[in-house]
Amino acid sequence: MILTVTLNAALDVTYGVDSLRPRTSHRVGAVHRRAGGKGVNVARVLAGRGRAVTVTGLVGGPTGALVREDLRAVPGLRDALVPVSGESRRTVTVVSGDDGDATVFNERGPQVSPSEWRAFADRFAELVREASVVALCGSLPPGLPSDAYAQLVARAAETGVPTVLDTSGAPLLDALGARPDVVKPNAAELASATGCEDAGAGAERLRGLGARSVVVSSGPGGLLAVTPEGRRRAVPPERLAGNPTGAGDACVAALAAGLADGAHWGDVLSDAVALSAAAVACPMAGDVDAATYERFRTTVTVEDLHAPQPH
Amino acid sequence: MILTVTLNAALDVTYGVDSLRPRTSHRVGAVHRRAGGKGVNVARVLAGRGRAVTVTGLVGGPTGALVREDLRAVPGLRDALVPVSGESRRTVTVVSGDDGDATVFNERGPQVSPSEWRAFADRFAELVREASVVALCGSLPPGLPSDAYAQLVARAAETGVPTVLDTSGAPLLDALGARPDVVKPNAAELASATGCEDAGAGAERLRGLGARSVVVSSGPGGLLAVTPEGRRRAVPPERLAGNPTGAGDACVAALAAGLADGAHWGDVLSDAVALSAAAVACPMAGDVDAATYERFRTTVTVEDLHAPQPH
Repeated sequence: MILTVTLNAALDVTYGVDSLRPRTSHRVGAVHRRAGGKGVNVARVLAGRGRAVTVTGLVGGPTGALVREDLRAVPGLRDALVPVSGESRRTVTVVSGDDGDATVFNERGPQVSPSEWRAFADRFAELVREASVVALCGSLPPGLPSDAYAQLVARAAETGVPTVLDTSGAPLLDALGARPDVVKPNAAELASATGCEDAGAGAERLRGLGARSVVVSSGPGGLLAVTPEGRRRAVPPERLAGNPTGAGDACVAALAAGLADGAHWGDVLSDAVALSAAAVACPMAGDVDAATYERFRTTVTVEDLHAPQPH
Repeated sequence: MILTVTLNAALDVTYGVDSLRPRTSHRVGAVHRRAGGKGVNVARVLAGRGRAVTVTGLVGGPTGALVREDLRAVPGLRDALVPVSGESRRTVTVVSGDDGDATVFNERGPQVSPSEWRAFADRFAELVREASVVALCGSLPPGLPSDAYAQLVARAAETGVPTVLDTSGAPLLDALGARPDVVKPNAAELASATGCEDAGAGAERLRGLGARSVVVSSGPGGLLAVTPEGRRRAVPPERLAGNPTGAGDACVAALAAGLADGAHWGDVLSDAVALSAAAVACPMAGDVDAATYERFRTTVTVEDLHAPQPH
């Protein structure tokens, strides 16, 4: 199975309003609630493709109970979340009926104690032994050490299980020394972490710090992969309008599946671009549109660029 | 004791953000959660003044459990809320750190079944027998008949217990035939319900439809009361900056306390204006600032206007 880790699991709440007007009161029409956090969304995409997938991470409080209740409804997804005493975070996305635009409010998450973190690390060590790949995704809740992902990547490596890491800022930089197999920043996260505006230079910087391969997502611009085999660019055949929030998670799902299958990088990248586009076609993160996926998977352009710099 | 009714009890959540910018993502700093809904706020004000007060209404789901947990922390307040199977609503207030402005999102509330409504009405009939006054406050959740307040006011009247009603729209208009003792719309609610821009004319319209007395709140403009004794206007000595959201609830608390004590209208109105001002001085609805209350209670101007039109 593929193991996904969501240390800051969330209940994603969507509010429909007629029109967002700051400094006024709004009647909320439709309210949707769904288990979220990047690793949960990645697991949902994998489960939807028939993959055996296990979700772990941290949840707590009444909001955490709603997260778990929602996950029980996903066929093929196993819940191995670890309880904490704090309350899981909510994200509130306000969608305006007039223009469809989304305004997002992200709570920080529960305060996690050192003993809760140790309990999680022990559970992770058990779960990783059953995994073919581990995907580690998203922000860290308050209280966790900034090298939390480094500890988990190191444990997976000891067990011989490859890792895909999708996070940003200090948790990303602090994890690189543990040598994750694939790191997937988006272009803005990469520039922020490395100071490099050029994606290729930024990716090389992350590889120099320990990442084995780096896949940089640039929205409709597609993916740039810098791997031990060289550089490749994968570009979608057309630009899609829609909801970009789940595209990165769909990309991580494809990278994890490709790593699990030992697929060729060219195939992995075209699958990742097609699956990202299929996520843009759906309003909720974690969903993918089957027709878009079928249409894109054979029409993504993958181009070999020059050889990588040695490390 | 004073009984307050909150048919659409809520968890009031406040999000602190640096600056509200539509169509962007926000990191939420401080998150505050508190039991809310108008009747809950009224009860909190009364309990803070040493009054024996009982809260009833409808709550459900994990959010309802958080509402009840929060109420347990209020000294002197008795929880007699009635459970429903749906999930209680949340309100989310986003406060911008740059200008202090508040943007509010109100969920509609749980769907209530006819049998749940009958169970509530039975419980209300028991509670009202112990009450000196009933305050009925706020919106109705989905599924309730629009004459829900009429049924409760009629039951209180049969038991000989006077009522204060603070609601708007159809639930207000449909309740008037049951002859509530005091109705407290704000100026905008009154204009919307009656089509009268003039508060005095609007209040007479509500009295014509069955309200015994009408107290119209106009924010810093104070109160206009139209009662069987005539018209009075009560005006605060100065204009306060602050949070107006709890002022109406503090006003209702003073009206309920005055009705329970059989106080003179002039005294009731000056107390209501002082308590409303004391609520404006506090950031959270349901709180009142003791120093502001003491400063205002002796300096409110109450003016007798002309005699009421006969009904």
